[in-house]
Amino acid sequence: MWMKIARFRTGIRVAYGVVKGDEVIEIRGSIYTKFRMTDARYPLSEVRLMPPSEPMELWCPGLNFADHLEYAGTVLGVETPPIPQHPNPWRKGRNSLTGNNDPIIIPKDSTGEVHYEGEAVAVIGKDCRRISPAQAPRFILGYTCGNDVSERTWQGDDWTFWRAKGSDTFAPVGPWIETDIDAQNLDLMVRINGKQVQNCNTSDMLFTFPEIVSYISQHVTLRPGDMVFSGATGTTTAIRPGDVVEVEIPGIGILSNPVEAEFDINAP
Amino acid sequence: MWMKIARFRTGIRVAYGVVKGDEVIEIRGSIYTKFRMTDARYPLSEVRLMPPSEPMELWCPGLNFADHLEYAGTVLGVETPPIPQHPNPWRKGRNSLTGNNDPIIIPKDSTGEVHYEGEAVAVIGKDCRRISPAQAPRFILGYTCGNDVSERTWQGDDWTFWRAKGSDTFAPVGPWIETDIDAQNLDLMVRINGKQVQNCNTSDMLFTFPEIVSYISQHVTLRPGDMVFSGATGTTTAIRPGDVVEVEIPGIGILSNPVEAEFDINAP
Repeated sequence: MWMKIARFRTGIRVAYGVVKGDEVIEIRGSIYTKFRMTDARYPLSEVRLMPPSEPMELWCPGLNFADHLEYAGTVLGVETPPIPQHPNPWRKGRNSLTGNNDPIIIPKDSTGEVHYEGEAVAVIGKDCRRISPAQAPRFILGYTCGNDVSERTWQGDDWTFWRAKGSDTFAPVGPWIETDIDAQNLDLMVRINGKQVQNCNTSDMLFTFPEIVSYISQHVTLRPGDMVFSGATGTTTAIRPGDVVEVEIPGIGILSNPVEAEFDINAP
Repeated sequence: MWMKIARFRTGIRVAYGVVKGDEVIEIRGSIYTKFRMTDARYPLSEVRLMPPSEPMELWCPGLNFADHLEYAGTVLGVETPPIPQHPNPWRKGRNSLTGNNDPIIIPKDSTGEVHYEGEAVAVIGKDCRRISPAQAPRFILGYTCGNDVSERTWQGDDWTFWRAKGSDTFAPVGPWIETDIDAQNLDLMVRINGKQVQNCNTSDMLFTFPEIVSYISQHVTLRPGDMVFSGATGTTTAIRPGDVVEVEIPGIGILSNPVEAEFDINAP
């Protein structure tokens, strides 16, 4: 059934709900198994949307768009990588997870080269291990918007992506999970302060979501709520304190995040 | 106060407790803030020990013993790396977490080169962000034994350690957390089927636990229960189905894990 599932805070309480129009209807039960609607409804404007699931892990597929290969080589200081023959999964930090309208915080010791990467994100619905690509769609609950925020200097200098792509607040996701959508034909746009800076379609993914999920599941048990990013396209530019970054996937919604500088107690 | 904190299953219930002699005394409250003993006591022989905390993330420091550099270069197919000037943190998978006496499962498509790496493991006690090495000990609850199980062929072939060190069951930890111990002067032995195959001391760590925790905390908020491994020493050998691997740190205890082959429905 076509449905938008949100996780939200109202007062001090966090709940799951179903979005209808400009309201969210609180549910009882589990979004992964069975739930029912309650009588509690809240205007979306009066709740704070949270990351729409509580993942144990956030996964990215490595290079997954042909038009990102040359740029990735430049960032990493290597020649343009060949088209990969399989996904190259890596773990983004759960500490970096942040919700719609929450700030992306530029670390005070960043070189300033913190870039957006607008992506589509699959949310796992059931435990899965050693499933095939054909089986994978049954294990995916739905899709949301994500931003694989990346500090390009650290990405090139460090041995791993631990801080380049794993610093606190570097994984905005939301606003909610759309459960019934053609994930391999999604338009995706990124805007900075209303100006479009990225425009792509998930039909250009080198490996589809079912292929990535299947690949990871050969050695890792994926859990309900785990998130799998699509990978990034093209070239990107820096975001700066004061900017607002939007990742829009028509049919899902808009993930919007302000950009802030980390508070620096030693700043003049 | 000197104390061994365990997490254990009795029947269908999981609880935290304090180990005294050959018993575990169940506690009420939080191991990270305040707790009290209850009247419930169980013989250790009658409970199943679980990983002693519920981490959001498992961290490893990259190369952290001088005598592991040459071997690491061989595994990765590169020249012997120079002595690192700072930790190179990477995330081990939370899916790979497993407890004392639980099996390490060799994936059916492994080349057979699955190796032990006996390590000491710090368990974080409080949220920490941008703390100094001098402050770090106050944010560490205690120490346990760990095994950074590693598939050497995948470690050399893959772009990341996602499966080489992140496959299911590749992170045994336990048996419990020792809260008061000199973490930079721990003997550590690994035995396979009773035969010693690794013998080192944490005084040889290139970066101490406080230095590693401080380094990670500059960009990542560490949470109560998060685990930080010491890094591995020397050279290692393969473990095989039927083996029992023990990591012993006198003053903490012995982490023991049987090795099993993954069930293969297609095997002859």
